[in-house]
Amino acid sequence: MAEEVSGGALIAIDWGTSHVRARLVDGAGTVLAESRSDDGIARLAAGAHEPAFRRLTAGWPAVPAIMAGMIGSRQGWREAAYLECPAATGALAEAVVRFGAADGRPIAIVPGVMLRSPSRDGDVIRGEETQIVGLVDGEPDFDGVAVMPGTHSKWVSIAGGVIGDFQTVMTGELFDLFAHKSFLRHSVAQDGGDLTASPDFALAVRRTVGEGLPFLTALFSVRARALIAEVKPDDNLAYLSGLIIGGEIAAAQATGRLAPGTSLRIIGARSLGRAYAEALAVAGWQAPVLDGDQLALAGLIHLARAIDFLPPAFRSAS
Amino acid sequence: MAEEVSGGALIAIDWGTSHVRARLVDGAGTVLAESRSDDGIARLAAGAHEPAFRRLTAGWPAVPAIMAGMIGSRQGWREAAYLECPAATGALAEAVVRFGAADGRPIAIVPGVMLRSPSRDGDVIRGEETQIVGLVDGEPDFDGVAVMPGTHSKWVSIAGGVIGDFQTVMTGELFDLFAHKSFLRHSVAQDGGDLTASPDFALAVRRTVGEGLPFLTALFSVRARALIAEVKPDDNLAYLSGLIIGGEIAAAQATGRLAPGTSLRIIGARSLGRAYAEALAVAGWQAPVLDGDQLALAGLIHLARAIDFLPPAFRSAS
Repeated sequence: MAEEVSGGALIAIDWGTSHVRARLVDGAGTVLAESRSDDGIARLAAGAHEPAFRRLTAGWPAVPAIMAGMIGSRQGWREAAYLECPAATGALAEAVVRFGAADGRPIAIVPGVMLRSPSRDGDVIRGEETQIVGLVDGEPDFDGVAVMPGTHSKWVSIAGGVIGDFQTVMTGELFDLFAHKSFLRHSVAQDGGDLTASPDFALAVRRTVGEGLPFLTALFSVRARALIAEVKPDDNLAYLSGLIIGGEIAAAQATGRLAPGTSLRIIGARSLGRAYAEALAVAGWQAPVLDGDQLALAGLIHLARAIDFLPPAFRSAS
Repeated sequence: MAEEVSGGALIAIDWGTSHVRARLVDGAGTVLAESRSDDGIARLAAGAHEPAFRRLTAGWPAVPAIMAGMIGSRQGWREAAYLECPAATGALAEAVVRFGAADGRPIAIVPGVMLRSPSRDGDVIRGEETQIVGLVDGEPDFDGVAVMPGTHSKWVSIAGGVIGDFQTVMTGELFDLFAHKSFLRHSVAQDGGDLTASPDFALAVRRTVGEGLPFLTALFSVRARALIAEVKPDDNLAYLSGLIIGGEIAAAQATGRLAPGTSLRIIGARSLGRAYAEALAVAGWQAPVLDGDQLALAGLIHLARAIDFLPPAFRSAS
């Protein structure tokens, strides 16, 4: 066992609703091994998390494991109650839940963050807070907004290493609902390539952000374009995508989250991240795209260090 | 046959996507008989419309029939091409498509109305134009906006008997998608009673209309309320409904369709119509609710008269 441990110092896991991704890292933060599966918490009943963890890390040394994401929800392995905003990196570390697995292995779960808001009751994130820790780890002085595209996109305001507040927009889910499950499905392609390649993506962003066309007013134009203007289904899918992302940007401006001079970071390297960069560029904003997986790993390692969760080999090497 | 004809003078049909409603009326516009079925055009293949018409009017006299709605679409019995905005009542009458059924019976189909718009390409209505004709028949001097709630709600600007332009909002469909097919379904009741009875309906309208909370910003609060504020599913369904209708009202204000002093009529007596009246009242607008079925009938009779489509018995009595 001692020999196995010497090969790796920490297991860092991003454990979401539908997917889980584990990485075995050494003291320098180098990834020695990686493992993924579809054992997201949505398909795991109570008691099934530890076996899923063992499957995921089979053959790896029995080092401590730190994890973030929906694994800390009420339906996860062990609940890590939401930390309330404003939430500093240090407070997040203090709120990490620690316990031993059945075999005594140390496990740590990062809490999510909760916002109370008089104007909309509140909001929650779980998993993104760890990517923010990773962002702040690399840019301690960052003062601005992290735009985190996804099924449920997050716009997170950060200053001095503290999550000030944040906003969820159901971007990816709305796109899926409208493109595949609504009446608009007859007016758009059912499978899209690079949506930003169509000029209609930028057109939709200009209408929602530049011309102030309200999202609810704009939505039915997807149908009208197919019927009246005979727009091609591929272009119309790009237009629908531009309406949602553009509507989201316009909403961020209207609520003051996106103001002149605000620094932005887009977190998420997938196609949706690129689409946001393109939409923000049309709206006049420059925003670098950072790799979300990398930031999640950096955040998990940062928090593990902060709670002194590392085995001796890791500490000595770092 | 002559005896049968003397009992009724015109068949007026509102024939939509999922339902059809036929009424046999005499020369004074009195309804002598009524018939409904689920033979909306969505379930009728090419060639099936005339048999459906015969089933619907079985036992009725073989008088002329005028119809409006999706029956005039490309997937209907006979296409009645869209009339372009601005569209006067008289122009609508001129554009009515007339033909003979297989047995020679005169059939008339009212066209829909199309809008071309540089800001959103365009919009279409089909069926609502006939209710507008009915509205103008009763209030020739009406100058304002007809709010027509439904699966796809319509806001129609009218002046001098002319449809100036209009806006579709996918209200009813959005409510169904969010309440039953999105992640939010876990946070709302799956079956609602009178949604406006909950104070959370008005709360959502105040937030979207009064406080300017953008719809896309507000939507995820449905989830946050259930999670953080432990709002009851019934109240949260009412809140979701208020967000959509309130968002629609805010969009109508933002685009100038709803301005101080604008006269409003809500067309549609069902629960959705009452919800709109309530939401508009919260937003500071008074709007009487008119019966959409009655206006459709009035519109069909008005157009039948305008195109001289009535049998002699009808004309002499009117």
